[in-house]
Amino acid sequence: MNKPVTPESIDPRGAAALFARYRREDSPKPAQWNDTLELILAHRSHRNFLPEKLPEGALETIVAAAQSASTSSNLQVWSVVAVEDEARKIRLSDLAGGQKHVRDCPLLLIWLCDLARLENLGRERGRDAAALPYLEIFLTGVVDAALAAQNAVTALESLGLGCCYIGAMRNKPEEVAKELNLPPNVFAVFGMTVGVPDPAANAGVKPRLGQAAVLHREQYEWGDAQREAIETLDIKFKDFQREQGLPDQGWIRQVLSRVRGVEAMSGRDRLRDALNVLGFALK
Amino acid sequence: MNKPVTPESIDPRGAAALFARYRREDSPKPAQWNDTLELILAHRSHRNFLPEKLPEGALETIVAAAQSASTSSNLQVWSVVAVEDEARKIRLSDLAGGQKHVRDCPLLLIWLCDLARLENLGRERGRDAAALPYLEIFLTGVVDAALAAQNAVTALESLGLGCCYIGAMRNKPEEVAKELNLPPNVFAVFGMTVGVPDPAANAGVKPRLGQAAVLHREQYEWGDAQREAIETLDIKFKDFQREQGLPDQGWIRQVLSRVRGVEAMSGRDRLRDALNVLGFALK
Repeated sequence: MNKPVTPESIDPRGAAALFARYRREDSPKPAQWNDTLELILAHRSHRNFLPEKLPEGALETIVAAAQSASTSSNLQVWSVVAVEDEARKIRLSDLAGGQKHVRDCPLLLIWLCDLARLENLGRERGRDAAALPYLEIFLTGVVDAALAAQNAVTALESLGLGCCYIGAMRNKPEEVAKELNLPPNVFAVFGMTVGVPDPAANAGVKPRLGQAAVLHREQYEWGDAQREAIETLDIKFKDFQREQGLPDQGWIRQVLSRVRGVEAMSGRDRLRDALNVLGFALK
Repeated sequence: MNKPVTPESIDPRGAAALFARYRREDSPKPAQWNDTLELILAHRSHRNFLPEKLPEGALETIVAAAQSASTSSNLQVWSVVAVEDEARKIRLSDLAGGQKHVRDCPLLLIWLCDLARLENLGRERGRDAAALPYLEIFLTGVVDAALAAQNAVTALESLGLGCCYIGAMRNKPEEVAKELNLPPNVFAVFGMTVGVPDPAANAGVKPRLGQAAVLHREQYEWGDAQREAIETLDIKFKDFQREQGLPDQGWIRQVLSRVRGVEAMSGRDRLRDALNVLGFALK
């Protein structure tokens, strides 16, 4: 199995998919390729959907895929709320920065860190659940929800659907909790708009940092390779932005603007307080 | 697209996969199915690997899949360390509860919440990055890392490889950081052992809660449907444990034991202090 990758053994579909992702001549060129990899590499967020509903049964298939992801110690400390009611989508859109596709999508999924199930179970069985108030278990729920959601993304894309994560669902956590009737110890980690992508919308594959920036061997390194990957992405990202008809500020300006301070956080600077209000002690 | 699922339209492969996941006669029966869904539904953790290395180029393909996952505002606040050095794997295994497959796997991936890249970039460009010390951005990095890792899982399984998440990599965060030379503001969220699964190991698909427990419609509900799903899983999980030659304590006892208190947390009750030491203010 350990034959080196030679020019003859490169899979051209795979090489094209990795070039599209990195826009670098030195992108890795895989020898093994398949339809699942093709699907994953082609991922892009969709914010424009056709008005039609999802096919009958698709939601249940997507949730089965989500539940097939690993979950820490099989705790399954996550849940998901499927929202289709028009008025509720409008209210949730208003709570999440007013994004149009949150109103317009046929299906809005809200992914939850859910410690209430184990808390209820412990109380009803008269058993201590003293680990629940710790940051560790909160983190477990967040990771569980994220692994599940990412499986859902792959599943729904395999069915020809598209989606977009909504981090802005954390702008006003208490109001979102009220809208979804969340009990204490349940937190909406992010939303996800789902639908049939509008083929008229021109969404391209977004370029990413070259692997030298994110893949470290044996130990972490901040050095010239990582700096070069950042500089190159900055250029490639300007190309991407121009292609999409967006202002070509590049990657560096965009991300540094995003983390410049509290004024850019849309209220999420108070997330810790909000979580305390929702019952998470985060000890 | 909205034809109801009829007995004639059910895909038998899909129906079998969902029955294997839930072990319930009332499991959803999908009308649409494909090889990607088949792969995702068949997921199980692998802790026994053949001694051979990964095929040449597989790691780069897996990382490209990971980087193709969504990342909040394209911040890409994650990294991964690939560990193959035998001595380092032994040390990391010792730090993570001594699990044998952490030593024995051909490849150990450590998935990082990485705020150092943006911090370094801000400092080198003379720009404020005042949002980085907030819990929100830490959470963004954790979610980014988890979405990337789950794409990696699907990708590596599509290549015939197997893996297991290692949450115990959070048992001693400062020591893990030292071993991997992590700078401040980088945190090892979890590990992942990767290799060619040993076909002699009898790992079955682990049953999950029925969908009534995790999939909520419009609003969250704790009620009889969720209780029934828990009771049923408890029975199905005992069957699974017996099949695997494990003590058949069931799901309820196992998970309540796992969250009973600090004594069951393997040191992770001090995660918040450890993160503070690693530079995360978690404001």
